[in-house]
Amino acid sequence: MGEPYRIAIAGLGTVGSAVIKILQDRSDLIEKRAGRRIEIVAVSARDKNKDRGVALDDYEWCDNPYDMLDGIDAVIELVGGADGVAKSLVEQALEKDIDVVTANKALLAAHGYDLAVAADKSGRSVFYEAAVAGGIPIVKTVREGFAANEIRAVYGILNGTCNYILTVMRETGRAFDDVLAEAQEKGFAEADPTFDIEGVDAAHKLCLLSALAFGVKPGFSNLPVTGISRITAADIDHAEELGFRIKLLGIARRLNGKIIQGVEPCLVPLARTMSAVDGPLNAVYVEGDSVERGLSTGPGAGGGPTASAVVADIIDLARGHALPVFGIPASGLQDAQWGGPADIMSRFYLHVVVLDQPGVLAEITEVMRDQGISLEAVLQRGHDPNNPVSIVMTTHTVTQEAIQMATQTIADKTFVRQSPCLLRIETF
Amino acid sequence: MGEPYRIAIAGLGTVGSAVIKILQDRSDLIEKRAGRRIEIVAVSARDKNKDRGVALDDYEWCDNPYDMLDGIDAVIELVGGADGVAKSLVEQALEKDIDVVTANKALLAAHGYDLAVAADKSGRSVFYEAAVAGGIPIVKTVREGFAANEIRAVYGILNGTCNYILTVMRETGRAFDDVLAEAQEKGFAEADPTFDIEGVDAAHKLCLLSALAFGVKPGFSNLPVTGISRITAADIDHAEELGFRIKLLGIARRLNGKIIQGVEPCLVPLARTMSAVDGPLNAVYVEGDSVERGLSTGPGAGGGPTASAVVADIIDLARGHALPVFGIPASGLQDAQWGGPADIMSRFYLHVVVLDQPGVLAEITEVMRDQGISLEAVLQRGHDPNNPVSIVMTTHTVTQEAIQMATQTIADKTFVRQSPCLLRIETF
Repeated sequence: MGEPYRIAIAGLGTVGSAVIKILQDRSDLIEKRAGRRIEIVAVSARDKNKDRGVALDDYEWCDNPYDMLDGIDAVIELVGGADGVAKSLVEQALEKDIDVVTANKALLAAHGYDLAVAADKSGRSVFYEAAVAGGIPIVKTVREGFAANEIRAVYGILNGTCNYILTVMRETGRAFDDVLAEAQEKGFAEADPTFDIEGVDAAHKLCLLSALAFGVKPGFSNLPVTGISRITAADIDHAEELGFRIKLLGIARRLNGKIIQGVEPCLVPLARTMSAVDGPLNAVYVEGDSVERGLSTGPGAGGGPTASAVVADIIDLARGHALPVFGIPASGLQDAQWGGPADIMSRFYLHVVVLDQPGVLAEITEVMRDQGISLEAVLQRGHDPNNPVSIVMTTHTVTQEAIQMATQTIADKTFVRQSPCLLRIETF
Repeated sequence: MGEPYRIAIAGLGTVGSAVIKILQDRSDLIEKRAGRRIEIVAVSARDKNKDRGVALDDYEWCDNPYDMLDGIDAVIELVGGADGVAKSLVEQALEKDIDVVTANKALLAAHGYDLAVAADKSGRSVFYEAAVAGGIPIVKTVREGFAANEIRAVYGILNGTCNYILTVMRETGRAFDDVLAEAQEKGFAEADPTFDIEGVDAAHKLCLLSALAFGVKPGFSNLPVTGISRITAADIDHAEELGFRIKLLGIARRLNGKIIQGVEPCLVPLARTMSAVDGPLNAVYVEGDSVERGLSTGPGAGGGPTASAVVADIIDLARGHALPVFGIPASGLQDAQWGGPADIMSRFYLHVVVLDQPGVLAEITEVMRDQGISLEAVLQRGHDPNNPVSIVMTTHTVTQEAIQMATQTIADKTFVRQSPCLLRIETF
């Protein structure tokens, strides 16, 4: 056994406390697996006196996390946030030739390329398994397990909060707001749920997977994001009737030399395994030239699974494993050519709420025809001259650009009562 | 970039040829990911003149694979077989301080402990991602991704041939022999399918996962194995009617200080994701104290996926990653205490074919009662004094020992027409 691997932990929330607990409870097992002892030297958080359910007496307490950076091998950054302390702590660690483990997807989505350059310069690693899909070792799978492959696509359910909400909406028929409020009470959603429900959290994760899979600089600003807050119980019902389930998917795919990436609620065929991944679980597919397709599912969040990923990274580093941030040296990361709506060919689901008056369906189908869009199925629900009715359509394969233009034209019609709901059908 | 990582490949079948093709076709990408060039120095196989669809001119050809062991960093053992050339080649490589990558589950199941000792002595690694579940990076997931966890269980569908046969039997209602013959024609089953259909191949894989997960010496001789050759179309039908699907599962689990491991066809509830993993796919669950449960699915065999795993191991080694064979030093591997039928508590499915005469069901249920077994469901099919009829039962939770004794008692009754089919119901 070699020298102990000395770490300091910044941020002692749920994940930080769980990391300490694992390192305390399983120190012998982890020592065997790491080939050396992992020693917590110092910890830092805002409130020294808060009870975190773990003993901190053996560690140096630093009010200022920057004070921990001497005499350690790695800093574990669990402060969070794309900038501020998290960013400067990681930067300073790399300057001092210290490895970094972080669960901070926002930081890496925003500054991943600069940090990759800094890491290469220092010869140290920034590991972030916990930043993507919690307990699923998907970063390792893409970066190492599938390293022999030209990766074609990576996609999946990357946000457990959204998946939980969509699952409960489907199972109970309840409305989005209602289910969100319950999820907040139960701790499945944050007090400020915006990042989750508007898809930003999933987009941060996808942006990192995309950079890893395709060897490109992370392109968060080139990643269109739509959340789930506009999904209604009616859409979920219609989808089910048509043989689909609505899932918030992050998808990144190579197509004709471009990379298409985005986060959006999609209709997934009921026959696909992905449609059966329910509740707070995450699920990620990776497609490679040689390996065909692999799927990993597991808990996407929570103290235990996330801490498990953090500690796995620490063990890897203690073993002496080192890797560039995005799997290849930063100097080799390409500026991707990002695809847009004109490149995306797909089937679509469109739900329009209209006044029940003669000729409405004719006008809508005329718009579709003018855009060269052929329909696969049409459901018209209810006939009531006094109340709006729903028209639900699925299309054959068209460009996203064409269907978006058609949807805009339809939205502007006077008989349309609310903003149409356009969703992609993702058959993989 | 450092010095090239120099390898020699022994065995140029489907996998060996696919490894060469990947290394040729993606040399630039792999060089970026490995941080250095991977250079094939020499190759060896039985027949030099066979067309393998890849150019071999740039490599030294060795009729004798042992001649390749000088001046290389790793030998890629794709010869196969638990003994003979494969074993001595790996032993000699380690003696010469050369890393080993192998797809040989039989070798490691039989001699894994001795090779782990030899690897530790030499300070080199033996990597074998391709030996377990082909394209699924499950060795890496257990050994590294879940390294922070006390692992509770690892289980899944580990043989694609059996899964394919069971899937086709269910979809078509055809008999085992018939479907096996077709699978052989299509290349989904070997000319001699014994290792696959009798569960030995799955047992080799499970034995390695069990050693990795629990830090024990591989215990192939303590791994009871039942294959699928006795499963009938009727059993598949009955299972479906009862809400289950029959899958050949390998299961290794910690229980009260013991390890219970085995390969057997089980009934899996239709509601579980595992029951939907069809065709030649593999699927593996890992349960850990912190990570809860993760599932990985993907192609379990085939040249591309298996070669992808081999090359991933080569890239890891070229990066300088090193690990003991079973994740911890061989000196730390325990002699497991293996559990047996008295330790296994489960629900069971029992199918008995009997003469349709009065009192038969009473006699059978009496045997169950005497063993303290309570029944959950009973199906009796057909009434025909001239032909045998099927009685299908599912039990509440009992020990495997008790149900095995009851089954033996029932099998000895004069009214029983064929050997009863006893299967475990695995609800995970």
